[in-house]
Amino acid sequence: MNFTSSEESAREVGILVDHVIVNDDVAIKDLKKRRGVGGTIFVQKIAGAKAEHMEKLDEVKRTAEKVITNVRSMGVALTPCVVPALGKPTFTIGEDEIELGIGIHGEPGVQRSKMMTSKEIAEYLTRNIASDLNISTEDQLAVMVQGMGGTSNMEKFIFYKDVRNQIESLGAKVRSSFIGEYTPSMEMVGLQLTILKLDDELGNLLEEPTEAPGWHMWS
Amino acid sequence: MNFTSSEESAREVGILVDHVIVNDDVAIKDLKKRRGVGGTIFVQKIAGAKAEHMEKLDEVKRTAEKVITNVRSMGVALTPCVVPALGKPTFTIGEDEIELGIGIHGEPGVQRSKMMTSKEIAEYLTRNIASDLNISTEDQLAVMVQGMGGTSNMEKFIFYKDVRNQIESLGAKVRSSFIGEYTPSMEMVGLQLTILKLDDELGNLLEEPTEAPGWHMWS
Repeated sequence: MNFTSSEESAREVGILVDHVIVNDDVAIKDLKKRRGVGGTIFVQKIAGAKAEHMEKLDEVKRTAEKVITNVRSMGVALTPCVVPALGKPTFTIGEDEIELGIGIHGEPGVQRSKMMTSKEIAEYLTRNIASDLNISTEDQLAVMVQGMGGTSNMEKFIFYKDVRNQIESLGAKVRSSFIGEYTPSMEMVGLQLTILKLDDELGNLLEEPTEAPGWHMWS
Repeated sequence: MNFTSSEESAREVGILVDHVIVNDDVAIKDLKKRRGVGGTIFVQKIAGAKAEHMEKLDEVKRTAEKVITNVRSMGVALTPCVVPALGKPTFTIGEDEIELGIGIHGEPGVQRSKMMTSKEIAEYLTRNIASDLNISTEDQLAVMVQGMGGTSNMEKFIFYKDVRNQIESLGAKVRSSFIGEYTPSMEMVGLQLTILKLDDELGNLLEEPTEAPGWHMWS
């Protein structure tokens, strides 16, 4: 609703405007209902770099859609978050439980499991993403490991290592790595994995410098 | 012990080596017992930039000591952390309590209080630092607001705004701002404030570009 309304307002004052819909969350099986989660960040960075080159809107949109076709994500959580306006946790969960397939607005997962190790989570998320994205041995990838807000940096790096081992066991190659918090949910403890298949165009646009202070690429 | 031993090992193989002791934690009243906390990051960045210019070790050390003279920090925590090798929380604390004057290795604070608002914490930490550092209306400052590991980004930015209001009410000027996690304690929920008085030399060295991926300056 907010997006449509902003688009209409922009059009009314004569601004050329268009939209894309990011649908990278593989936790949702129904393709039409898929949400945009961490993949949104890659769409914004790459479409933004294209726009910086003063390309036409159609071309910016084409690039954004190419990212959407090639990006998938899935996340897990150990705790809910408290949305301030709501004032209470978005869900409840036991000490030894884990939510699989969370959203980025504090939504619970699509499934609940007994606690898993970092390696088990890495295997589970990478497998779900790799099968949906059809990752093969030729692929060059950008990998984003995010905390959901309350996850320590050490855990993010341990998890990143486990993800990287999983990806390399598929024979694919990691070209760019992102470790931090790009689409967190307040103070939620959890992790989110996003994988983007790169060709030269996407890889180069992703790696172009930006002054956005929240952006940092690890390698 | 580890630092002394490393210094000796380096000297044995003929490497010119020296050390400085960072003591920015104003929570400790006894100057001789003061720990290095967030200020260590400014010492490393500025001494590092000096070393990048291939200056002699004495000159690098002089710059590091100039930072130490001009930097102060203090932190608070709402929760302890679990050091993995220890396997249990480093202290216990009630839901409505706050630790004032924490260290960066999960140590409890020097004092405990009833829960405070972001504004009250900003006022308390800024006042403690400003009186120790003797901040006056002419001063140009670098300000670092850090989460301790489990603090949401939104809370860091709200707290930063409150700190900035406090500093501006003293008539001092913020030249550089750092918001993120530079010396966190695992998953501890808390905040740490570091203020560095800048002259042109320190300001310019601090702002020199670096490829360290964990480094980002917000303004």
